Amino acid sequence: MRATVMYRAGDVRIENVPDARLIEPTDALITITRACICGSDLWPYKEMEPSETGRRMGHEAIGVVEAIGREVHGLEVGDLVVMPFAYSDGTCDFCRDGLPTSCIHGGFFGVGGQADGAQAEALRVPHAEGTLFALPVGRDDALMPSLLTLADVMGTGHHAAISARARRGKAAAIIGDGAVGLCGVIAAKRLGAEPIIVLGRHRDRIALARKFGATDIVSERGDEAVEHLRKLTGGFGAHSVLECVGSEDAMRTAMEIVRAGGAVGRVGVPHYQAIPGIGEAIFYNNVTVSGGPAPVRAYIQELLPDILEGHIEPGGVFDRVIGLDEVPYGYQAMDERKSLKVMIKP
Amino acid sequence: MRATVMYRAGDVRIENVPDARLIEPTDALITITRACICGSDLWPYKEMEPSETGRRMGHEAIGVVEAIGREVHGLEVGDLVVMPFAYSDGTCDFCRDGLPTSCIHGGFFGVGGQADGAQAEALRVPHAEGTLFALPVGRDDALMPSLLTLADVMGTGHHAAISARARRGKAAAIIGDGAVGLCGVIAAKRLGAEPIIVLGRHRDRIALARKFGATDIVSERGDEAVEHLRKLTGGFGAHSVLECVGSEDAMRTAMEIVRAGGAVGRVGVPHYQAIPGIGEAIFYNNVTVSGGPAPVRAYIQELLPDILEGHIEPGGVFDRVIGLDEVPYGYQAMDERKSLKVMIKP
Repeated sequence: MRATVMYRAGDVRIENVPDARLIEPTDALITITRACICGSDLWPYKEMEPSETGRRMGHEAIGVVEAIGREVHGLEVGDLVVMPFAYSDGTCDFCRDGLPTSCIHGGFFGVGGQADGAQAEALRVPHAEGTLFALPVGRDDALMPSLLTLADVMGTGHHAAISARARRGKAAAIIGDGAVGLCGVIAAKRLGAEPIIVLGRHRDRIALARKFGATDIVSERGDEAVEHLRKLTGGFGAHSVLECVGSEDAMRTAMEIVRAGGAVGRVGVPHYQAIPGIGEAIFYNNVTVSGGPAPVRAYIQELLPDILEGHIEPGGVFDRVIGLDEVPYGYQAMDERKSLKVMIKP
Repeated sequence: MRATVMYRAGDVRIENVPDARLIEPTDALITITRACICGSDLWPYKEMEPSETGRRMGHEAIGVVEAIGREVHGLEVGDLVVMPFAYSDGTCDFCRDGLPTSCIHGGFFGVGGQADGAQAEALRVPHAEGTLFALPVGRDDALMPSLLTLADVMGTGHHAAISARARRGKAAAIIGDGAVGLCGVIAAKRLGAEPIIVLGRHRDRIALARKFGATDIVSERGDEAVEHLRKLTGGFGAHSVLECVGSEDAMRTAMEIVRAGGAVGRVGVPHYQAIPGIGEAIFYNNVTVSGGPAPVRAYIQELLPDILEGHIEPGGVFDRVIGLDEVPYGYQAMDERKSLKVMIKP
C-alpha cells in the first residue's frame, strides 16, 4: 500500500510500504477514506532531523473498518469511523475521566511511535474499541469535511475554549488564525462567549473567522495588539484566551491580554521551555493556565450532533482537496500559507 | 499610637507613629484587637533592602470600628470586624466576580503602599464597606484565633484548594507545612478530598496536619518524596496539588507530583520568574496551573459558618500570643521556626 513518509525537514514522500494488518487482538484495520495535513505536521516539516527509516505521517482520518481483532467489541466490518489523533483503550482511569490522551495504554498516530500514520491508504488502529467512533452517515456524505475535523482540529479548538473557560457573555480572544484557531472561534461561539476577538491578519482567514462567529479582529502586532484588545474589553483583557499557536511569542501575548482572574487555554504544542511572564505578574492576577493535547475522543459525543444538525460547520477550514500522490505538494502549500488546511482523499 | 515598622531585613521595631485617622469618606478607623505575623512577612524579614522611612507591617486583623467616613454604609461604630489582607471597594467588576484582590480601587495592607499595617494599635481601612466583614461575636470570644485566620491563612488555604480543584474522593497533596499549608489541609478535607497527603517533616506541624485531616505524610525530599507520593496515589500523582510555599523548588515538586489532568493551586508568593517544568511535559499531561493572592474577602461568607459551628478550627495554627512590644521577637521566632504562627494582642 502507499503511505506518507517524512525523511527530514522538507522531504515528504509517498512510498510503497508493507500493507497495514492486524497485530494485536484489540486492533482494527481501516482503509482511509479521508485524511488531512495538520498544522502540527508543519513543525517536523520545518525542523525534522534526517532519518534513514523515516516517519510515517498523519493523525487525522475517517475510514472504513476492514477487519477487527477478536477482542474488539462495538465495531463491525464496514463501519465508517472517525479516528482521533491519539489512540486509547477507553477503559483506564484517565479515559473514564475524559482524558484519553493520557490513557495508560495510549499513544499518538503519526509521530514515529508504535502506531503508523493516517496519510496512507490504510492503517492499523491500536485499541480500536476505545479509539474509533462510528459515524451514522455514508462514506461520501456532504458533511465529511466537518466530520473529519472531529479527529483533531474541532476537538482541539473546543479544548482550547474549555481550558480557557469560555462561557456565556464573557470575552474570548483567539491567538492564531490557523485551522485550530478558527475552530476555537466556533467553539467559543458555541459556548456563548461574547465578544469573540481573533488576533490575526491573513485576509482569507479573517473572513472565515468572521463567518465562524468572530466579532472583532485585532490585526496589529506586539504592544499595539495588546492595546487594541484591551480597548475592546473595557480595558481589562479577555476572560478567556485560546492560545492556538504554541510559540513563545504567542504565549507571551496570551499572558498580556488575559484579564485578571481569567484563563489561558493552550493547545498549540509548546515550542518554549518555560511560560514567559508567568512569574509574579500572572500570579498577582490570579491567571489560570490550562490545556494540552485535546482529548478529542471524549469530545466527539458532544460535538457530533451540532455537526449533523448543521449548527457548526468546521469543515470550512479545508480549502484544498488532493490525492495521496499530491501530499508532498500539500505540505508545501500549507507551509507557504497558500492553503489553510488540506484534505486528502487517498 | 504604636505600630510595627520594618527598616531592613531583620530590623523590625515598634515605634510611636501619628495616630491613624479617617482620610477618605469611604474609610473606617479600627482599633486592632488581634493581629498576627504572616509567613509572607518573613520574605522582607529575610530580604528587605534598607529603607529610611521604613515599611509599616501587618495585613491580618480583627478590630473594632471606631469611626466611619460619611460614605460608609452597612458598618457601625462598635462593630467587631475581620480585615482581609487586601482592601477592595466591593462594587467593581472584579469584586462582583469574586476577585477582590484585583479590585480596581483596591490594594494591600502592610506592603509599603498607601495603606498602613495591621501590626499596630489602630489602622485606617480604605474602602471599608467593601473590605471589612462584621462578626457576630464578642471581641474576646473563644473563637477569636480561628476567626482571625479569615483575614488570610484560612482563606488562602481555601484558595489553594479551590485553585487546585480539590474535590470529593480525589487525592490532594499539600506542599508546605506552614500555617497556609495547614489551612490547605483543612480546606482539602472540607471539600472532601481523599487521601490528603502533606509534604513536610517538622514534627509539631505534622501532628497538627494530622489533626486537621491529613491522611498521609511524605517526609522525604527530592526524588524520594516524588516516588513516595506516587505510591500513595496509585502511581499517577495527585489530582490536586496545593503549592503553599512559593519557592522554585516547591513549584518544581508540584509539577512532578501532579497527576495528568490535575491542577496545581499556587498561593505562595512566587520567588521564581518562570514556572519550572511547565514546558512540554506539563503540556502533554494537560496540567492546569492556577492560583494567586487569595480573594479572602469573598470567601468569608462561605467559611465563617464552619468556624462558628466548630466544624473547622484553623485557629490551631497559632502557637504563641504576644503583645505589640514583643513583635520583633515574634518575627524572630517564626523566622527560626520556633513558632508556627504568632498572634498579637496590641
